[in-house]
Amino acid sequence: MALSEFELIQRYFAPFNTSPAVVAGIGDDCAVLALSPGSELCTSIDTMVESVHFPANADPHGLGWRCLAAAVSDLAACGARPVGFCLALTLPDVAESWLAAFASGLAAAAEAFAIPLVGGDTTRGPLTLSVQVMGEVARGGALLRSGAKAGDQVWVSGTLGEGRAALDYLDQPSHANPFSKAYYYPRPPLQFGCELAGVAHSAIDISDGLLADLGHILQASGVGAEIDITRLPVSKALITRCGRERATEFALSGGDDYQLCFTSASASLTTLQALAQKHEVQLTCIGHIREQSGILCRDAQGKLVDPHYSGYRHFS
Amino acid sequence: MALSEFELIQRYFAPFNTSPAVVAGIGDDCAVLALSPGSELCTSIDTMVESVHFPANADPHGLGWRCLAAAVSDLAACGARPVGFCLALTLPDVAESWLAAFASGLAAAAEAFAIPLVGGDTTRGPLTLSVQVMGEVARGGALLRSGAKAGDQVWVSGTLGEGRAALDYLDQPSHANPFSKAYYYPRPPLQFGCELAGVAHSAIDISDGLLADLGHILQASGVGAEIDITRLPVSKALITRCGRERATEFALSGGDDYQLCFTSASASLTTLQALAQKHEVQLTCIGHIREQSGILCRDAQGKLVDPHYSGYRHFS
Repeated sequence: MALSEFELIQRYFAPFNTSPAVVAGIGDDCAVLALSPGSELCTSIDTMVESVHFPANADPHGLGWRCLAAAVSDLAACGARPVGFCLALTLPDVAESWLAAFASGLAAAAEAFAIPLVGGDTTRGPLTLSVQVMGEVARGGALLRSGAKAGDQVWVSGTLGEGRAALDYLDQPSHANPFSKAYYYPRPPLQFGCELAGVAHSAIDISDGLLADLGHILQASGVGAEIDITRLPVSKALITRCGRERATEFALSGGDDYQLCFTSASASLTTLQALAQKHEVQLTCIGHIREQSGILCRDAQGKLVDPHYSGYRHFS
Repeated sequence: MALSEFELIQRYFAPFNTSPAVVAGIGDDCAVLALSPGSELCTSIDTMVESVHFPANADPHGLGWRCLAAAVSDLAACGARPVGFCLALTLPDVAESWLAAFASGLAAAAEAFAIPLVGGDTTRGPLTLSVQVMGEVARGGALLRSGAKAGDQVWVSGTLGEGRAALDYLDQPSHANPFSKAYYYPRPPLQFGCELAGVAHSAIDISDGLLADLGHILQASGVGAEIDITRLPVSKALITRCGRERATEFALSGGDDYQLCFTSASASLTTLQALAQKHEVQLTCIGHIREQSGILCRDAQGKLVDPHYSGYRHFS
């Protein structure tokens, strides 16, 4: 049964369009949203293309979750409270079973991250998912990449490397991929991120890999960093599967982790620990910010090496 | 020369990122925007896919203009002042000459519509352009589809039908297409639309064709309409090329016009004429709203016909 664009949107996407901030949702020329008084709007857009960012025949429920999770990860990095998101969905044909599973995964993520779907566009073409997210911060309160200061501690949330490890299994069915959950169902610490604004000096989400993303903070802030690779948070499962050396490389350069890397004054330690406990977020201090530019890594032998010349980037 | 995503964005898209509303633009996890105090956010997203919404080898400068113009058309329909837009650009490969022309067309439209580029995502894949626009309205002031009242006059801006007429020439080079300008360089009346809020009762942009789009207003408002097809604004060029009958069919059902269809009380006539003059927008009253559902068309013989059974839709 061929459904029109209007029927498709009505059937699969209209139901999870609820929030007090939504003045007018799907079904008009624009969605209309009421931000909190005194707040500023934070916005970001992320695109995933079949066979480029995910394999053909990827699990549609997982894709639904993943495309929204990857986008809200940018809100987390800015310390923004979620307001709403738009979905531009380009589909090769209308397979209702695919669409039902995709919408179900998307709805699950929308509920988990407390962000309503407020608008979108459905078109025919090669499978492409663009998610645009909107959040709000107190005026002047957005967490940026540019605030890192010499002496800051460098922190990461969660564990790193499993997103990259999953790529080696993506041609296999989801159930045969030991890191399927990390790949399809990332959980960026959005609520934790909202409370980081005012505590952290700078933040970024780890989507391109820790070294690359920390590098963006360093460049924007005009500083450098020293990190201790023995402290990188990697899961036991990752070490068991890949060995510690490869697990470390994945954690440094793998990407697709959708965790936060941020810097803050050492005096903020108690506040951070309380926030981590409140939101059940694992936090690890992996190093500190220095005045000199560049990233130095202290390796397992205690030696300082430049990771860009040590082979840690050869997977990127 | 292969440029990275970062270099591409820096070179072609960073330069036209300026507006007092932009607190932080391209280059952080999110763009941060300051809306006017007391305003609400209006947002919409539109996708165009190569070989679906535009031909392969379409003029890149025209595409740059068109993808933004089509998206701001939704802001015009809501009466929203432009705040900023995001671009999700999926490209098969990095052809710098293509990208330079595309960015130049996009920048020209951004300037004409006074809307800054604030964020985006550049990915590899089949050529797909998603533009997400943000605007603002006074609280409660968004122009919706649902406010049409029996007795309202039905108005359209500009002329209709050339967008559709251009499709018949799209396999030819731009210079051989007599309606190339209407197709690649539509000019939705954005500033006029901003001032329509508070005057018009309902509005929509004409992207799917007048009958279809007016139909959305009627459905959302629970009313019907009678329109006089002899009053439809069609250009002399369109009539000369296609004859009056086909020109009328294109105007009724063609789509891609990016003009406004709106309804307002007849008492607003003087205000509307002043606004039209101020913004140099051609306005035509084409009929009125009735209580009974459905659209009736008065034809050239003065007979009332139901356009959905008269063949006017056979191009849609």
